[in-house]
Amino acid sequence: MSDLVPLFQPKSVALIGASSNPNKYGYWTAKSLVENKFEGDIYFVSRSGGEIFDHPTYPDITSVPGEVDLAIIAIAPKFILPVMEQCVEKGVKCAIVVSTGFGEVGPEGKELERQMLEIARKGNMRLQGPNCMGTYSSAKSLNASIIDLAPGPMSLVLQSGNFGIDINFNAKTRDLGYSCWATIGNQLDMRFHDFVQYIETDEDSKVLLLYMEGLRVESEEDGRKFIEAAKKTAVKKPIAAIKIGRSAAGARAAASHTGSLAGSEQIFDAALKQAGVIRVDSPRQLLDAAEAFSKCKSAKGNRIAILTDGGGHGVMATDFAEKFGLEAPVLSDATQDKLKEILMPHCPIKNPVDLAGTPEADMWVFDRCLDVLLKDPEVDGVIIVGLYGGYADLSEEFRTLEMDVAKSMVEKISAADKPVVMHSIYAQQQPECLKYISENDVPVFGEVDAAVRTMGLLSQYSEIKKNLQEESDDELPNMPSDRKEKAEAIINAIKESGRTNLVETEAREILRCYGLNIAEAYLATSADEAAELYSKIGGKVVMKIVSPDILHKTDAGGVALSINSEEMARETFDKLMANGRNYKSDADIFGVMMTTMLPSGVECIIGSSYDSTFGPTVMFGLGGIFVEILKDVSFRVAPVNMPSCRSMIREINGLKMLQGARGTKPCDLEALAETACIISHLVNELRDIAEVDLNPVFALENGLAIADARIVLQDEK
Amino acid sequence: MSDLVPLFQPKSVALIGASSNPNKYGYWTAKSLVENKFEGDIYFVSRSGGEIFDHPTYPDITSVPGEVDLAIIAIAPKFILPVMEQCVEKGVKCAIVVSTGFGEVGPEGKELERQMLEIARKGNMRLQGPNCMGTYSSAKSLNASIIDLAPGPMSLVLQSGNFGIDINFNAKTRDLGYSCWATIGNQLDMRFHDFVQYIETDEDSKVLLLYMEGLRVESEEDGRKFIEAAKKTAVKKPIAAIKIGRSAAGARAAASHTGSLAGSEQIFDAALKQAGVIRVDSPRQLLDAAEAFSKCKSAKGNRIAILTDGGGHGVMATDFAEKFGLEAPVLSDATQDKLKEILMPHCPIKNPVDLAGTPEADMWVFDRCLDVLLKDPEVDGVIIVGLYGGYADLSEEFRTLEMDVAKSMVEKISAADKPVVMHSIYAQQQPECLKYISENDVPVFGEVDAAVRTMGLLSQYSEIKKNLQEESDDELPNMPSDRKEKAEAIINAIKESGRTNLVETEAREILRCYGLNIAEAYLATSADEAAELYSKIGGKVVMKIVSPDILHKTDAGGVALSINSEEMARETFDKLMANGRNYKSDADIFGVMMTTMLPSGVECIIGSSYDSTFGPTVMFGLGGIFVEILKDVSFRVAPVNMPSCRSMIREINGLKMLQGARGTKPCDLEALAETACIISHLVNELRDIAEVDLNPVFALENGLAIADARIVLQDEK
Repeated sequence: MSDLVPLFQPKSVALIGASSNPNKYGYWTAKSLVENKFEGDIYFVSRSGGEIFDHPTYPDITSVPGEVDLAIIAIAPKFILPVMEQCVEKGVKCAIVVSTGFGEVGPEGKELERQMLEIARKGNMRLQGPNCMGTYSSAKSLNASIIDLAPGPMSLVLQSGNFGIDINFNAKTRDLGYSCWATIGNQLDMRFHDFVQYIETDEDSKVLLLYMEGLRVESEEDGRKFIEAAKKTAVKKPIAAIKIGRSAAGARAAASHTGSLAGSEQIFDAALKQAGVIRVDSPRQLLDAAEAFSKCKSAKGNRIAILTDGGGHGVMATDFAEKFGLEAPVLSDATQDKLKEILMPHCPIKNPVDLAGTPEADMWVFDRCLDVLLKDPEVDGVIIVGLYGGYADLSEEFRTLEMDVAKSMVEKISAADKPVVMHSIYAQQQPECLKYISENDVPVFGEVDAAVRTMGLLSQYSEIKKNLQEESDDELPNMPSDRKEKAEAIINAIKESGRTNLVETEAREILRCYGLNIAEAYLATSADEAAELYSKIGGKVVMKIVSPDILHKTDAGGVALSINSEEMARETFDKLMANGRNYKSDADIFGVMMTTMLPSGVECIIGSSYDSTFGPTVMFGLGGIFVEILKDVSFRVAPVNMPSCRSMIREINGLKMLQGARGTKPCDLEALAETACIISHLVNELRDIAEVDLNPVFALENGLAIADARIVLQDEK
Repeated sequence: MSDLVPLFQPKSVALIGASSNPNKYGYWTAKSLVENKFEGDIYFVSRSGGEIFDHPTYPDITSVPGEVDLAIIAIAPKFILPVMEQCVEKGVKCAIVVSTGFGEVGPEGKELERQMLEIARKGNMRLQGPNCMGTYSSAKSLNASIIDLAPGPMSLVLQSGNFGIDINFNAKTRDLGYSCWATIGNQLDMRFHDFVQYIETDEDSKVLLLYMEGLRVESEEDGRKFIEAAKKTAVKKPIAAIKIGRSAAGARAAASHTGSLAGSEQIFDAALKQAGVIRVDSPRQLLDAAEAFSKCKSAKGNRIAILTDGGGHGVMATDFAEKFGLEAPVLSDATQDKLKEILMPHCPIKNPVDLAGTPEADMWVFDRCLDVLLKDPEVDGVIIVGLYGGYADLSEEFRTLEMDVAKSMVEKISAADKPVVMHSIYAQQQPECLKYISENDVPVFGEVDAAVRTMGLLSQYSEIKKNLQEESDDELPNMPSDRKEKAEAIINAIKESGRTNLVETEAREILRCYGLNIAEAYLATSADEAAELYSKIGGKVVMKIVSPDILHKTDAGGVALSINSEEMARETFDKLMANGRNYKSDADIFGVMMTTMLPSGVECIIGSSYDSTFGPTVMFGLGGIFVEILKDVSFRVAPVNMPSCRSMIREINGLKMLQGARGTKPCDLEALAETACIISHLVNELRDIAEVDLNPVFALENGLAIADARIVLQDEK
């Protein structure tokens, strides 16, 4: 059972700091509890004594007669520690600290938080807040907040009380309410993943909304717990989130290619995507999503039909369809034939289906055309766009007709297996027929973009569920079973020598432990040995200087290509060693690495960096200008399975480069996905690694060739 | 004087088809005219006779006693021609045909339109419509529409009556009205440029709004007239437009690089930009723009300060700032010092300035901080974000305070020289203080994104004005004065020979006529001549087959590089000729072109295609994958001056490639701009040309090198 059951379904609640002074938080909360008719025992704890809202008060929680599942603490920070001790003593299971003045105001507050957490953990008491605005739960009619909240199909978890107020204003105008509502404040103990986990099994929550400013993490495991919880929940119900702080992306500077691209915002965005969370930009979009997800059937794909009585609005919807990831394809001949029977010859029927003035003669064309579109197996959703709701202004007869047609359409939509959303320029006026439609589970929007964007979210969620299910099949490339211990032995030896930079030969060894196909490389420590090794390798050979002190080998003149004779190998050895010493006189040079020269293909990068919130990640991108100029890369939090790796590769803008643009053969995308997948498991299993940079990786028609590998370990903590 | 003065400021109006039947268009229009209290003479023409709204009726317009400036025609198409003849006879200056059933329904309607236009043009009568919803003008209190319109600072020209209704609903809720309002229907005679021209000099129009589905053009001159009119108007007042049909972009297929990228939507978008028109996506954004432009001071730049009492909302505003082209830079030390004196130590003051709970203790912090920000010369605009308007809920004292502070802020904003827009989560509830603020010229938005997007538009317009002014200075590269006649002589000779494809030597000649620096090229017609020419050119030489029948020379094996001896030139001549004949046995081969081999730099394309709406255009892009995979190109309608060409080059995503990314020296952007500029004048002056394709052009540290040139003429019309 979730630790949060006593938070959302308490049998009894104590409000510590309850007050009869209408200017106090302790009064407002008491009022909410009483007025919302909490279905359990309410105890008010107040040092002032007396009655509050006709309830007796108790001087402290230990004096409360019955058991207390949930304590709401609304007292000044200086009194918090002894009160928490008393809560533990009383056996309170969850506490909400709504007071402010903790970690958010400075180091003293942080220290106080540390002590609070210690008390709570020792006492097995879960803690929400501090610095939060409480909780609501329709299951027990619990309103432990100061906001007027109503029951409904949404759950909302927020990191800001202001957004709670903001969203609730608009939720009310849409008649939307909550199953669970919680503000998590400083996330001292209860974090986003705890709430996501609880809501997974809450039957009344049809959709979960999050407003996030950032995850509080003690280690990357906290970030990972969020991803795991969200993944499990998202297969059952949609999660939509606002995450602020986007523009901070790109601010972080870092030394390596991978690092310099891995601004934490990019990783956060990738993590949300990976977790199956739909990211939206504004409170309004969040509610649009909530309304659609709680009202509409799920979409099976992204092909929509647009039914309109306003030509321009129909075209505008088509424009927005493309923008929001939907397709408005030309309707099938069969469907067009049926529409032709209903509509006049001048009406466009390819998609949008434009009624073009016909409803004035016969309102039922709406209903008949909608029926045709709902029955078309190649249509995944229908958007009705235009002037519905305004015909009533023409005459009383039209008012009746508009309502009758609305009723019939609602019936058909309710019987169909696909979502329908509606736009009307009359939406704001709320004519009777639009109210009816909206109350009968068809969201009605006053703006075309909102209607289409929301249909886009419905379609996006169908894709998310499919992807999460595929990803959960644990499809993985083969990796040797002894990989981890072998690689760790190499890493430990390097750590013991006090280094964090692996030389290329070592990096290649580690990759080989994980079964990656990388050409055998040899270390020459003398010119003679280089000549000897050349005769062993043969053909064209690459030679590179090997030194933990020389990271940028090319800059140091430490790389030579196309070596094709023993003599040349000998000469090159001397030259590279001289260049190396010249570049850095005190460099510890291990020798010169020799390996066969690889066929070149489309230049790619596969890498990994370590994110402070989510830990090891994996990155894929095209090399050269794509990464340097266009920052065309995709990320995942490691590890990932093959389906995610395939999507990662498909996500880059320059994908065509790998699909045989410019007259070349298509590259082996599966081989790229496998390598990315293996790297993701490698960095997940070997947490000493801070960075991996396979650059370049040449994508070939069959397989790939890793031409350079760099691995950097974490600094000792 | 504009032809449209009698439309917007008529002394007298006749409604032909006036009716006393409340189900008729002729009734609704009569009602609008009378109820809106038109400040001139109203004449109703009706075949049924009798009185309408206490006005006498006349059997036809010739029977009307006084002069008629404007006729509104609301009769069935079959009666239209004789009625128009009568209007001309009567000396009517403008007619609005609101009736439907013309060009929009088929060929018969199109023929009727042709005859209408003939009558109107012969009679010097300008025509609005047909298939439109009429006109409104506050100057004369003229409402010649069927919609309830009110006076105000906007002008709106629409290609759809439905959008007129849609926008008007929302305009009313914002207390926004119109100076001029017109629906242009089928644009038979009066087109967008006519209206834009009129509104340029209409003092009451503070902002011009357009809703466009497309321009009706008889020739590209119509498209160009729109650009010219918009440019002239946009330096005086902002123009914001919706243009639907975006998603059609990219659908058009064409043979050449330039052509295949120049979907007409891309050109339309470029044309709007070039014309100084701000493009928005939805009716709501259009009104956001209108409200801000009619209320706010103009912005001098894009640096904004965000003042917030809701931390999360402030961060969200910062995120949106980046998205909408604004910067929220760290405030100067001087400003931060002043803010420190006002705010508590825990309040962030870098930007956003976060009041973080202080207003509850002292509401005046809003006013004092705003004052500091308004006085900061490095701040171009201020966005207030958060909870203002909700403090009144705390107590009566706060209600008074909130209003007092609002008054003081409004005073400061009104005295300042920069725009201020506001967001409040309470906007929808319209508390008294927010109403006051909004009525005193500070737009108040209920959504953070709308507030920031709108500030972005204010900043965008300041940029537009600057660009239009720069562009109007006619800064041009040198071009020979006899360029046009010389080039036309070449083109005429080619046309006479029945060709439309120029061979490369001819294309180079034409470029040279315009003063473009392109290496001398020679035509060899025999192997001996090739050898001789080699000795003349020397060094490394390029040889290319010359045939109007071989467009893709490389595919035909018709190009050879690095020829470095007479002997090699001789051999190559024979090889190329053989390859050419082999590729196309009946090809007319002129010989082999020889020219010095050019230094290679960053690969670019400069080209031109011919757009059906706007005529000749000019295009710039990076070559290789940038154009092939990423479609990274920019367009302008030709001709353009140097400032536009410089922007064109700065617009591409891969700009860094030209600025010395990847360790190379920066390229000569000015030389690229000059070449694009000359090409734009070349195609503007030589309208026989359909396409130009300079590809590749190598951008160098100094100057550039045009390595290949292709020109195609228009097919004979």
